[in-house]
Order: sequence, then structure tokens, then C-alpha cells
Amino acid sequence: MAPTSEILTAERILEATEEVLRRHGPAKATVVDVARALGVSHGSVYRHFRTKAALREAVTKRWLDRTSGELAGIVAADRDPEARLRDWLATLFAAKRRKAGDDPELFATYMVLTGENGTVVREHIADLTGQLTRIVEAGVESGAFAAGTDPAMTARALFHATGRFHDPCYAREWEEPGIEADFTAVMDLLVRALRA
Amino acid sequence: MAPTSEILTAERILEATEEVLRRHGPAKATVVDVARALGVSHGSVYRHFRTKAALREAVTKRWLDRTSGELAGIVAADRDPEARLRDWLATLFAAKRRKAGDDPELFATYMVLTGENGTVVREHIADLTGQLTRIVEAGVESGAFAAGTDPAMTARALFHATGRFHDPCYAREWEEPGIEADFTAVMDLLVRALRA
Repeated sequence: MAPTSEILTAERILEATEEVLRRHGPAKATVVDVARALGVSHGSVYRHFRTKAALREAVTKRWLDRTSGELAGIVAADRDPEARLRDWLATLFAAKRRKAGDDPELFATYMVLTGENGTVVREHIADLTGQLTRIVEAGVESGAFAAGTDPAMTARALFHATGRFHDPCYAREWEEPGIEADFTAVMDLLVRALRA
Repeated sequence: MAPTSEILTAERILEATEEVLRRHGPAKATVVDVARALGVSHGSVYRHFRTKAALREAVTKRWLDRTSGELAGIVAADRDPEARLRDWLATLFAAKRRKAGDDPELFATYMVLTGENGTVVREHIADLTGQLTRIVEAGVESGAFAAGTDPAMTARALFHATGRFHDPCYAREWEEPGIEADFTAVMDLLVRALRA
């Protein structure tokens, strides 16, 4: 039996796929490249991901899930809802900036992949606004936030109003001086809107 | 003396330039094309705009100024500041949607031109946030909006928080069903933040 490190898991394939995409770019990367990087046949890769499109979709989801996973912990924390909201949005902003700034080529690659995988992106955004909804609900329940509006609609509005600080179309602005002050000003405005 | 209709004004050159850009695209349009469209020598065009870059900058500014001009009237109106704020942002959104939706090729052309003319765009945004500042100041003076924060900073935050509804990077979203409800939800949130 092969040692654990050599068992071909979906996760190992996705890791290799990310590396192949980084190296060859999204236009040129193939399943054969992924198989070669893993030292397996392309048939072995296809046993986990039936098509190249399915593989690209899965690697996109994995990339997006890294951010959602980091944020989920903030939603669940037993803390003042306003602090949780500020922390959640600041963490989302920091995660996106890090992705864009630390490895611009991989980020550009994922911009192509998210453009191809609209459903995965929509599910990701639904997941994020769902997390925000839970924070808004907690705030309304604790009396910290005003009641009266639908928490899901408020969460969606909060997500839209902070797009400048997480939507990849603003990645270039994230390096500008003053972006932190702009983020704080928007957050202060939004928090004022929520307070009871 | 030539009849008025034939006097070569900067405005006539800019009109012709827009039409040439629309027809040939920003990559191929030349000053010679503009001169030909006007039935004049290219030297006559250069007497008004010393370089091709200056001409492209001026046509970009003219395009952006159409929006600012429409909005300036709302700032000056003698009305409740909250109504002015809602109207100003709804008018900005409508103007951008119209530009993007009615003539997508011209819009794409101007996206190239605004990318080339960062200074003109920055001045345009400073003009718009200046208009918003005057509405916020009027609201604070009338007692409708809470005092205590710098109106210019609040205006900038309002502009950033509504980017989804005027930033060209969202042009595709503007055709989605539900975009009007999303706009209203963000506006309601922001207005709640401002109220005294």
C-alpha cells in the first residue's frame, strides 16, 4: 500500500492545480500538466474531477472558501455584535488585499477563474452575506442594533456598501495611501446606521 | 466671413472627436480622422488642441462634465437635504446606467479614455464629492443631519459606499433584476446613518 503522502486525494490534486495555474497561466494550464506535476496519469486526475471545467471550478471554490472559513470564526465568536461586524469586514478586506498584493499573478489567474465560474462566486457571496446576516441578527437580538429592517436585506446592503474594500475590481486602489482611512470612514457611517 | 455654423470651435472639434472615436475605436482614431470629419486640415485641429493626447483628454473631460453638470442643479435646489441626497445619488446612478446601456461601444471607448486620463478622472471625482459635501453641509446646518463629523469626509464615505451604483466596473450588474432594490437598501442605510 502506498504511504499516506502518496495517496492521490482531491486536495492534493487541487494544490497541484493551483501551482500549475500559477506557473502556466489559466489559458495554457491543462489536466496533463496537473497529472505530470503529481507524477500520475491524467486518468487518475479525471477519476476525481470528471472534466477540466469541474477541476477549475473546484480550485476556484477552494480559493474562495479559504476566505469564508477565516470569517466564519468571527461570526461564531461570543462578542459584541458591533465589534464582530467591524472585525468581520476588516478581516475580509485584509484577506482580499493579501491575496491581491502577495501574489499578483495568482490573483490575476483567479480573476479569470471566477469570471468563468459565476455559480461558485454567487454561492460564495451568498455564504458571506449569510454570515453577515447572522451578525446583524445577533445585534438586533442583543438590542445593540435597531430592529425593524430585515437582517438579510441589511446584510446585503452592508456587503454592497463596502464593495470598495473587498471587490477585486478595486484591487489597484488597495495600495493607495488613505485607503485605511476611507475604510474606517465607511465603517463608522454604517455602524451609525445600525445602532439602536 | 464664414457663417457661424462653419466656425471651427473647440466644441465642434470635440463633438467630431467623439463620433470618430465611436466609429474607429480608441486604438485607431487619429487627429487626421477628426479633421477629415470636419472638412478641415489637421493643422486647424492642432490650433485648438496642441496634441492628440490633449484632444483625448478634453473629450474625456467633456463626457464626465455632462454628468457633473446634471448633478449640480440638484445640489443648488432649495429642498430638504435628505431628498437632495437621494435624488443626487439616484440621478448619478441613472446617468451612468444610461451611458453604459444606451451606447455600450461608446461607453467602452470612454472606459479606455478614462484609464488614460487619471488626472481628469480624479478632478471629476473631486468635483462630485465636493457637490456631495455641500449637500451634507446643508443637512448639518438645517439640523436634519447629525453634526460632529467632517462633511467632506462623510461625503467621501457616501461616495465610496455607493460605488456599486456608479462605478463603471459594475456596469454589468446594472442590468440585473433587483439592482433598484439593492440601491434603495443601501440608500436607506446611509440616510439612517446621517439623520440627527
